[in-house]
Amino acid sequence: MADLSYISTLPSANQALFHAKIAKKYSFADIAEKLGRSETWVAAAFYGNMPFAQEDIDGLVKILEIDPLAVEAISPAVNYFPDRASKFETPPRDPTIYRLYEIVLVYGYAFKSIIAEKFGDGIMSAICFTSKIDKEVDEEGTWVKITLRGKFLPYIKY
Amino acid sequence: MADLSYISTLPSANQALFHAKIAKKYSFADIAEKLGRSETWVAAAFYGNMPFAQEDIDGLVKILEIDPLAVEAISPAVNYFPDRASKFETPPRDPTIYRLYEIVLVYGYAFKSIIAEKFGDGIMSAICFTSKIDKEVDEEGTWVKITLRGKFLPYIKY
Amino acid sequence: MADLSYISTLPSANQALFHAKIAKKYSFADIAEKLGRSETWVAAAFYGNMPFAQEDIDGLVKILEIDPLAVEAISPAVNYFPDRASKFETPPRDPTIYRLYEIVLVYGYAFKSIIAEKFGDGIMSAICFTSKIDKEVDEEGTWVKITLRGKFLPYIKY
Amino acid sequence: MADLSYISTLPSANQALFHAKIAKKYSFADIAEKLGRSETWVAAAFYGNMPFAQEDIDGLVKILEIDPLAVEAISPAVNYFPDRASKFETPPRDPTIYRLYEIVLVYGYAFKSIIAEKFGDGIMSAICFTSKIDKEVDEEGTWVKITLRGKFLPYIKY
Amino acid sequence: MADLSYISTLPSANQALFHAKIAKKYSFADIAEKLGRSETWVAAAFYGNMPFAQEDIDGLVKILEIDPLAVEAISPAVNYFPDRASKFETPPRDPTIYRLYEIVLVYGYAFKSIIAEKFGDGIMSAICFTSKIDKEVDEEGTWVKITLRGKFLPYIKY
Amino acid sequence: MADLSYISTLPSANQALFHAKIAKKYSFADIAEKLGRSETWVAAAFYGNMPFAQEDIDGLVKILEIDPLAVEAISPAVNYFPDRASKFETPPRDPTIYRLYEIVLVYGYAFKSIIAEKFGDGIMSAICFTSKIDKEVDEEGTWVKITLRGKFLPYIKY
Amino acid sequence: MADLSYISTLPSANQALFHAKIAKKYSFADIAEKLGRSETWVAAAFYGNMPFAQEDIDGLVKILEIDPLAVEAISPAVNYFPDRASKFETPPRDPTIYRLYEIVLVYGYAFKSIIAEKFGDGIMSAICFTSKIDKEVDEEGTWVKITLRGKFLPYIKY
Amino acid sequence: MADLSYISTLPSANQALFHAKIAKKYSFADIAEKLGRSETWVAAAFYGNMPFAQEDIDGLVKILEIDPLAVEAISPAVNYFPDRASKFETPPRDPTIYRLYEIVLVYGYAFKSIIAEKFGDGIMSAICFTSKIDKEVDEEGTWVKITLRGKFLPYIKY
Amino acid sequence: MADLSYISTLPSANQALFHAKIAKKYSFADIAEKLGRSETWVAAAFYGNMPFAQEDIDGLVKILEIDPLAVEAISPAVNYFPDRASKFETPPRDPTIYRLYEIVLVYGYAFKSIIAEKFGDGIMSAICFTSKIDKEVDEEGTWVKITLRGKFLPYIKY
Amino acid sequence: MADLSYISTLPSANQALFHAKIAKKYSFADIAEKLGRSETWVAAAFYGNMPFAQEDIDGLVKILEIDPLAVEAISPAVNYFPDRASKFETPPRDPTIYRLYEIVLVYGYAFKSIIAEKFGDGIMSAICFTSKIDKEVDEEGTWVKITLRGKFLPYIKY
Repeated sequence: MADLSYISTLPSANQALFHAKIAKKYSFADIAEKLGRSETWVAAAFYGNMPFAQEDIDGLVKILEIDPLAVEAISPAVNYFPDRASKFETPPRDPTIYRLYEIVLVYGYAFKSIIAEKFGDGIMSAICFTSKIDKEVDEEGTWVKITLRGKFLPYIKY
Repeated sequence: MADLSYISTLPSANQALFHAKIAKKYSFADIAEKLGRSETWVAAAFYGNMPFAQEDIDGLVKILEIDPLAVEAISPAVNYFPDRASKFETPPRDPTIYRLYEIVLVYGYAFKSIIAEKFGDGIMSAICFTSKIDKEVDEEGTWVKITLRGKFLPYIKY
Repeated sequence: MADLSYISTLPSANQALFHAKIAKKYSFADIAEKLGRSETWVAAAFYGNMPFAQEDIDGLVKILEIDPLAVEAISPAVNYFPDRASKFETPPRDPTIYRLYEIVLVYGYAFKSIIAEKFGDGIMSAICFTSKIDKEVDEEGTWVKITLRGKFLPYIKY
Repeated sequence: MADLSYISTLPSANQALFHAKIAKKYSFADIAEKLGRSETWVAAAFYGNMPFAQEDIDGLVKILEIDPLAVEAISPAVNYFPDRASKFETPPRDPTIYRLYEIVLVYGYAFKSIIAEKFGDGIMSAICFTSKIDKEVDEEGTWVKITLRGKFLPYIKY
Repeated sequence: MADLSYISTLPSANQALFHAKIAKKYSFADIAEKLGRSETWVAAAFYGNMPFAQEDIDGLVKILEIDPLAVEAISPAVNYFPDRASKFETPPRDPTIYRLYEIVLVYGYAFKSIIAEKFGDGIMSAICFTSKIDKEVDEEGTWVKITLRGKFLPYIKY
Repeated sequence: MADLSYISTLPSANQALFHAKIAKKYSFADIAEKLGRSETWVAAAFYGNMPFAQEDIDGLVKILEIDPLAVEAISPAVNYFPDRASKFETPPRDPTIYRLYEIVLVYGYAFKSIIAEKFGDGIMSAICFTSKIDKEVDEEGTWVKITLRGKFLPYIKY
Repeated sequence: MADLSYISTLPSANQALFHAKIAKKYSFADIAEKLGRSETWVAAAFYGNMPFAQEDIDGLVKILEIDPLAVEAISPAVNYFPDRASKFETPPRDPTIYRLYEIVLVYGYAFKSIIAEKFGDGIMSAICFTSKIDKEVDEEGTWVKITLRGKFLPYIKY
Repeated sequence: MADLSYISTLPSANQALFHAKIAKKYSFADIAEKLGRSETWVAAAFYGNMPFAQEDIDGLVKILEIDPLAVEAISPAVNYFPDRASKFETPPRDPTIYRLYEIVLVYGYAFKSIIAEKFGDGIMSAICFTSKIDKEVDEEGTWVKITLRGKFLPYIKY
Repeated sequence: MADLSYISTLPSANQALFHAKIAKKYSFADIAEKLGRSETWVAAAFYGNMPFAQEDIDGLVKILEIDPLAVEAISPAVNYFPDRASKFETPPRDPTIYRLYEIVLVYGYAFKSIIAEKFGDGIMSAICFTSKIDKEVDEEGTWVKITLRGKFLPYIKY
Repeated sequence: MADLSYISTLPSANQALFHAKIAKKYSFADIAEKLGRSETWVAAAFYGNMPFAQEDIDGLVKILEIDPLAVEAISPAVNYFPDRASKFETPPRDPTIYRLYEIVLVYGYAFKSIIAEKFGDGIMSAICFTSKIDKEVDEEGTWVKITLRGKFLPYIKY
């Protein structure tokens, strides 16, 4: 996937990744599989929200056939850490992303209550966290299944 | 789960449900099972974001031993439809709910891209949609697993 | 129609389309007819809110006599998907667009109620959706008629 | 349709109308037909966004069997004019209303351009304006059709 | 004019004025003429944005036949000064008021430039200021004419 | 008048007009008179909020002695329509413009009420609208008089 | 000074102070002088933004002849500390207060620069701070003089 | 004082002034004295919030030894008037400026009340206005004293 | 400490705690010591941001001599979990709280960078977290020392 | 640490520092130690929120082996003072920084209350202020300890 308009606002190293991805006609699933990472994490890293390990950088250089210098600025070699979500408009206006936001609006208290009842006072971590997106097809149509999995962190009483 | 402060801002019928739930010491899982509904949907309906069917109302009256009149205002008998999310603060400040919002901030473009690559141009419906929350325990700790499942809706070309 | 000021903020491929359209002195209706698409969808696609199919791209190249490379960045060939509405100011300040917004403000609850009464609990899809604009002239003057048509999506009870 | 939570924030005269409507189990279509008005205008007037004429008030008193004093505060007898949209949250969070707003976000410039091309520099009036909502069923499903019709007002050159 | 919903949020003294005005079926023009004040100033004072002089209070008590105690809280007798515009929503959503706001949006720089060219660097005072609204009818229709007149205040060079 | 800082954000055609105006040392009144248009409309058009007719463009080319190509992008020749108020900050911070906005805040309800009482339920059009700014000098000082005149548009009952 | 509308939103102890002040027809200057405090500090304390010392409370009880219990809730006896500015709307809309805010907008960088040049890198404390308002009359008119005096606090280098 | 980061966002004429000031190592006090203006006004003019008179421009050219063309764009020769405060972020985040804003928050109602009591219903002008900043040293430390002095403008009763 | 104005917006159980605390003239330090909890956690729990364990509730009933029913609504007996920070205004306006916020503004990137350099890519948990406030006095004055201590949570690579 | 995306928005002198730091592979702790400053202050100065003394500039030139001219623009030689926090988004979206903000939301009133009880009415200075970040490891894991230490400033009674 590639909206070059948004991508042109990313750091040039991220742009280089996207341009190579387009040239190779690879999906994120393709790259993730070759890299041994998961698809959502790889996509988030392409958008600059997750940092690649050196082995990821090395892998990408091979898979996408890019110049290592083109991505050095986002590699551990320069002690890179991302400034996450800094470009994200809130509330989101893109319809695909808005639906995720709407789920938080409509189910926010419900999810909080069930977490509290099942786990106690605390949160689902968004840091010690993984996600994935699956496609399911049945007689009713095609379904997007998003799985969010984070460690439960209980509030300390002190 | 019960934050009486927030609950006191809900319509009186919803308050009645919560007070009966507290008195019975039922969890949402308890009520959902007795009602034959899912836990997240029941919690959302308690908070006024989903409308009960008449059979749900009848079931709740029995399960929670409440006066049918106490919940009539949110029943199909009065042609009730909810005004969803009207009380929701944005961006959310409660930490448990904020983490869900942060996942949208950090993974928004990643999720959008993967939906686009796997399904084409469209969205995951937040209407034709179900959700659930599971608890998983392994050697690393306790995990919250949230599953969001919505129909894929492609944009029409016309 | 062409406000070059706004257009200059679009990706260069969209700018190329607008400049060719101006040079040809084509209206959106002209292009839509030649392309076999509807006028509103074509206009939305010119502004970058809808993605052209490859056949649309091929058609545009011929109709507007533009270099295929000028629009490659928004073609399916590069797996393009738009980042919709990302440049849209809210609330809108342009008077023509504000009036549409004001209709939502003034009729929002009325429309919601009638949808609920006529269709049940759910929404009119903005994805599985078409629109058109007609001109009607009668003795009282000239009228703009906007037709919005979207699939009814009922909320699932689960 | 009746979300008593929202309705409880309306002036008492409007609340009286809604309570009588619920008691009579009338839809807005029922009332509109008996009153000789259109459905969307009647719904907007119930929500306090349009003012009833004296003949409407007289009609409602009969149709809904309510005390004339209960609705006097919103009648021409007291020279009533509504304060439109004063309670409307922006951007809207209710999903049904949000979809209408999203259509403005996604199609705003497209609609503006087509109005400009077909009519010249001006707006579709939201005052000299009517609307209606139709239900259409075909083999693909059920469709909501919203028709917005307003006078074209050209900008004066002076 | 009387939107009792908005009026119910005003201090009780202002509410008393409005209720008496409705009972007497007086327009603001009626009251202004009896009081020897201008119509717009009287309306602004009813809404709590201008303070009545003692002679105004005395006049209103007679004209509207109200208890002096009902309006004492907004009289000079208690050294009353208004907290102007504190209840005003911004940007305004009521269509009548919004049009005034839109004129500021569309003509703001034009008006500023012409003031600068005709008067020099400074402002039109909104304090040392009067306004009036006239009705003009010609063959093209009915026109609202709003006249804003304020002292020119030049910036000091020091 | 010319704040080159703001002007530098306008489309280049508008910048060309301003630079020529400065070079000629013409006021908006000068240009308006030569063009046979009103001063406020001309200023608004210079700022890009009103579109010039072809005869205006032709006139400006002569009056300001500019290259027709320099202003072609805002001429009817390219089917130009302005994106009004898109650069306007809200609430306005410039003191001259803020005073106009403050008048809306302080007199909003007063003006709305008087329009309702004098004209009925409706608005003063900001489209079918003219404005002018006069200078008046009396013994008390110098006064700015702004006249806003728009067609009254009544709400339709349907 | 007394805008009872705003005052009615203050804690009841503060309301009691204002009501007694009105009954006694005392200005803040009167009370400040009797109390041995400055006028601006006393006014800020009446509005709940500064806490009275026990001696102030004792003094006010005598000066205003109020019941000590009426003001106990804001006395040191209950370990009271104010929640400052919690009710303050931003940006302020009242014209008198807005002008102070506008001075910050227009002179913000100028004041910052001069403080930096005269004092070094740091701030004027708003805590270790006093203020006063004087009236000056000369041939040009009447002037408000506001003096703000705060300790200079230099940034530490560490 | 010179934060080149902020200054780089100013029009080039203002940048030229700042660069010359740095090169000369002049403070605003130095320039103000040479120019015969006050320090705060000069600083505000450097930041583009006050317009220089022609004599000021001539003076600056000499004092700072700059090319007259470098500052022509902000001179009366081109009929320059500033667009005040257009770049100012609200609420301000710089701590030095924030403290001034906080004083408005904490003392807003107090200052308004005292102005009302001492002067009547009106405002302190921010246009017919001067300011100065003094440094005072005593045994308690160093104090910043800011004096704001503006004409009292009473509201007209009309 | 007790600002009864803010406290009156809390749930009645929290209000009961504050009123008893005032009556007993206990500080948070007093209560924390008797309860065997830390001072900051106890204060946060009084404000409704942390939930008491049943042993805390039992302890408070004894220490403050309150009716157990008065605090039942915030006890584990009713499965209580707090809705954290729901009443918190942002950005904070109270000066004491604003300073903490300003530290985040001024040091945000510095703290993030040092956490990244010392710990790797991740966050300091605000859940698995403790805090304390100490008073230190030296020759330069009195110092507030706030210690924030949270578990480092590294982002997962997956 | 180095997020080149954010850094590219800083003044070029700050960028030069970061690029040299990356080239040298120095951490902020390394530089702080060599410079004889604390780590958090140095990081804040790199991000442009604290000004270097001339000795710091001289030190950095040596430690980082950079051209003195590259950093002259932020040195005392040009009378540099920073415009603090001007680029900071609020509320912060980066998760590491958000957690600090969330601590203010959740503990704001608690911290304010304890400061009031322990110190009296006043604030912890954010100017006369130091901070540090320590790493602690115990059997439960790795902990981030942030220490904030500021002078207590009592409100003056005057």
